[in-house]
Amino acid sequence: MRVRKKHIDVYTEIDKIDNYIRKSLKANQQVLTDAVNDLLFAGGKRLRPAMLMLAGRFGKYNEDKLIPLAATIEMIHMATLIHDDIIDESDMRRGRPTTRNRWGNSTAVFTGDFILARAFSIITQSVSQKSMHHISSVIKGICEGEVDQFQSKYEPSLSVIHYLKRTARKTGMLFSLSCQIGAEESRCKKDTVHFLSKFGLDFGVAFQISDDIIDFFGDQNKAGKPLCCDFVEGVYTLPVIYAMEDSKFKDQLAEFIGRKNLTVNEVEEVGRLVGVNGGMEKSRIMAGRYLKRCCTSLDNLPNIPAKRILHEFVEELTCRY
Amino acid sequence: MRVRKKHIDVYTEIDKIDNYIRKSLKANQQVLTDAVNDLLFAGGKRLRPAMLMLAGRFGKYNEDKLIPLAATIEMIHMATLIHDDIIDESDMRRGRPTTRNRWGNSTAVFTGDFILARAFSIITQSVSQKSMHHISSVIKGICEGEVDQFQSKYEPSLSVIHYLKRTARKTGMLFSLSCQIGAEESRCKKDTVHFLSKFGLDFGVAFQISDDIIDFFGDQNKAGKPLCCDFVEGVYTLPVIYAMEDSKFKDQLAEFIGRKNLTVNEVEEVGRLVGVNGGMEKSRIMAGRYLKRCCTSLDNLPNIPAKRILHEFVEELTCRY
Repeated sequence: MRVRKKHIDVYTEIDKIDNYIRKSLKANQQVLTDAVNDLLFAGGKRLRPAMLMLAGRFGKYNEDKLIPLAATIEMIHMATLIHDDIIDESDMRRGRPTTRNRWGNSTAVFTGDFILARAFSIITQSVSQKSMHHISSVIKGICEGEVDQFQSKYEPSLSVIHYLKRTARKTGMLFSLSCQIGAEESRCKKDTVHFLSKFGLDFGVAFQISDDIIDFFGDQNKAGKPLCCDFVEGVYTLPVIYAMEDSKFKDQLAEFIGRKNLTVNEVEEVGRLVGVNGGMEKSRIMAGRYLKRCCTSLDNLPNIPAKRILHEFVEELTCRY
Repeated sequence: MRVRKKHIDVYTEIDKIDNYIRKSLKANQQVLTDAVNDLLFAGGKRLRPAMLMLAGRFGKYNEDKLIPLAATIEMIHMATLIHDDIIDESDMRRGRPTTRNRWGNSTAVFTGDFILARAFSIITQSVSQKSMHHISSVIKGICEGEVDQFQSKYEPSLSVIHYLKRTARKTGMLFSLSCQIGAEESRCKKDTVHFLSKFGLDFGVAFQISDDIIDFFGDQNKAGKPLCCDFVEGVYTLPVIYAMEDSKFKDQLAEFIGRKNLTVNEVEEVGRLVGVNGGMEKSRIMAGRYLKRCCTSLDNLPNIPAKRILHEFVEELTCRY
């Protein structure tokens, strides 16, 4: 899933955002600069900043104003990725060693803090007080979502509702924020801000569900990390939660739930069990429901080229899992 | 060293600041609330917020305006302590288990982020854009200082200058910021802001040197953590750097430098060697030099009761090591 060049030159904008990030994150410590460059070089879809720029087109679009904001959103995302990898003890992301793997947990902790501090520094120069307050609240929400996920590790009785609420915090809120800030800072109408923000939230949840599906059934090379790694780490995502709803499969899965140090064969068996009982199918349906909501939000927005690209995002996400 | 009640009721102010922090850090996740309460209950001197409140008295003092700012500064300090303990793999602080020890590194990472995000949220509502930008820069500097310390671990050839520069970043800047923000947000004259800010920076460096002296030669119970733990972790502070300046002691210390897993007897021997060659004495002289600079800054400030308390801080720090 890459942001396609069409009526709007999203590629060029993203290059500008990357350059802005690179410039903003120059540090006195070489290791900080290296860690940042490594993350930027590793790619990633830059969906959040792209959405911010697109949302801005629904109002008085001002590229010079929006690029620092889009960079900030991506920087917050980068910081949470780095800290997330510490929590999850992940060694690989986007097919490359994680910051914690390459430089150790300790450097990763302060690299994340450094990026956050720089993001705030840019924000203080660029946005309204209201937006700043909103950004802080979203980071708070992401932290709560992450801590909730960690606290629920190896917990066998998670509900779908619990998963969705956590996912909205962990992933949805930052997508929603991207759309909202882009729209608000471009002085969109209240209604437009509302539907763009809602679009972002629903898209973010669908995106996370698709990520969780791919973790089970995806192509290891495409995923850039080993399969079922959430399950191995005790993070039971939507496909597992659905699988556990069926008492027959629950019994079969029970021996793997709550256990650490699963063998490769056991992990494969878990993937098979979650798959055959429809854990993947039900998760796909749920992701589809969120993507449908995205389309409803888009229906309420004016027909401008940016809307078509947001539609494409939805279509591409549908093809992803 | 406790903030003494005298002409100004610093105790009551600190209680108000603690309450403000407690109220601001209520989270949806119980573990976050618990971690925060644990940190607050563990005590600590609240020197930074106390200095901010005192600095405010050199201008148009407004308690309601300054308390949220003082709380924010302490929250930033708390967040860096939590992340610092992850880097240093510390199990004890202020005589109690650290957040990472009690709840694990993972929860500690996001507890720190959560506190930082909340701190920013308060700042965005309370201070000028200039102060906000300044606060972000200080957090960036702290991160650089921390990463520098980590990168220099087990490095035998650190210079005094390198140590002092790092210490200014790691500790001095936040003290300086406390004084500066308190003064600026109370509309002090430019000169007053300058000397208060300078006072804070020098005090912070002296404070860190005294901490590093206590790590070697202090009372383990008072320190609230094992002695020489910096050395054991490969962090060579001022007493060691001075000891290494003497070629005779350098040779004697050489067998312990760069080594991990020192035995208790070896650690004691290191402490003895650093002590007998005057590593402690030279460090005390350096701390004294910074405290003298603090007094010079105070000489340039108007004679108000707050100045006497800042003088007391200097005297009490002198008695500390």
